[in-house]
Amino acid sequence: MDFYSSQITNLVEQLSHLPGIGPKSAQRLAFYILNMPEEKVKLLSDAMMSAKKNVRYCKECCTYTDQELCPICANQKRNHKLIMVVENPRDLAAYEKTGKFDGVYHVLHGAISPMAGIGPNDIRLSELMVRLQGEVDEVIAATNKNLEGDTTAAYISKLVKPLGIRVSRIASGVPAGGDLEYIDEVTLYRALEGRVDM
Amino acid sequence: MDFYSSQITNLVEQLSHLPGIGPKSAQRLAFYILNMPEEKVKLLSDAMMSAKKNVRYCKECCTYTDQELCPICANQKRNHKLIMVVENPRDLAAYEKTGKFDGVYHVLHGAISPMAGIGPNDIRLSELMVRLQGEVDEVIAATNKNLEGDTTAAYISKLVKPLGIRVSRIASGVPAGGDLEYIDEVTLYRALEGRVDM
Repeated sequence: MDFYSSQITNLVEQLSHLPGIGPKSAQRLAFYILNMPEEKVKLLSDAMMSAKKNVRYCKECCTYTDQELCPICANQKRNHKLIMVVENPRDLAAYEKTGKFDGVYHVLHGAISPMAGIGPNDIRLSELMVRLQGEVDEVIAATNKNLEGDTTAAYISKLVKPLGIRVSRIASGVPAGGDLEYIDEVTLYRALEGRVDM
Repeated sequence: MDFYSSQITNLVEQLSHLPGIGPKSAQRLAFYILNMPEEKVKLLSDAMMSAKKNVRYCKECCTYTDQELCPICANQKRNHKLIMVVENPRDLAAYEKTGKFDGVYHVLHGAISPMAGIGPNDIRLSELMVRLQGEVDEVIAATNKNLEGDTTAAYISKLVKPLGIRVSRIASGVPAGGDLEYIDEVTLYRALEGRVDM
């Protein structure tokens, strides 16, 4: 890209390191940023640095927060005896948006994956075990419904059950609004196995 | 998004102002940035501010550059009597990648669009007219092959022909409605070869 000046080339390159941003998108973003008012670029640039500097793990649930406790763990109206374990903060956000869960979360920041060399010690499982020394009624394993998520859920169950705490797993089935003909066979089979009386 | 801390909410919001970045992508990018080493975030953040502060229009062709002249205008080996007029710097980049054009460019930063209220004075046409007072053999109208691009090309032709300078239009090898930056290099090359006098 020697037809660009070095600062533009550098900006395009830095942007193309972001996930889901290829060379074309990076170029489009770069020119968009060059066209933005300088104070807007500063807002964006400052938001990045300030978030990176100040955001850390919530000391309870390990999600990202700029306080000691995240807003959910700090909320005394939530049921702190019910812990939903998720793989990452985006999954926490997805469940929060349902507005149907009044417990608290635990964010693992990953899932066990022997293929990728990620073992139980590489995710936030020991922090979960520490929390279980308090008063906890139930742990819901809400890891993804794939090999890694299922493996992690099974591992959690093996750890938590001996403590006399209930462990559950989110249900498998046909998604709401889903047309049966487009659903994969494993999901259909699991929906049948998990059928409930009406 | 009150389940996120304020600095995270702010970062997600700033990112979602970028083009092609919806709320979900902004969230994904934000968490990716939080996971990056601080020095990498600083590189990205600095690249934005520094490019925004130092990049301006090339005083010849109006593309973006951090010098007085862009690398192409500063290159004495290019044919400065042959000017290709494009809508934006991404289109310039697309033609440079063909490696088949040895002339120079003129970047309009837009196209005439009565529907969007963009007239001839809103794009860099007067700067082009100033350049034509020097020695110029030919102006190639390489604006997009859509209504705005064609309108702009016709307007340029009307301005330039009376000066006794040849005006050509890139051939219709470029599909109608196509944005130059997404077209493959062979098609771009053929469109250049097959240009016709206007």
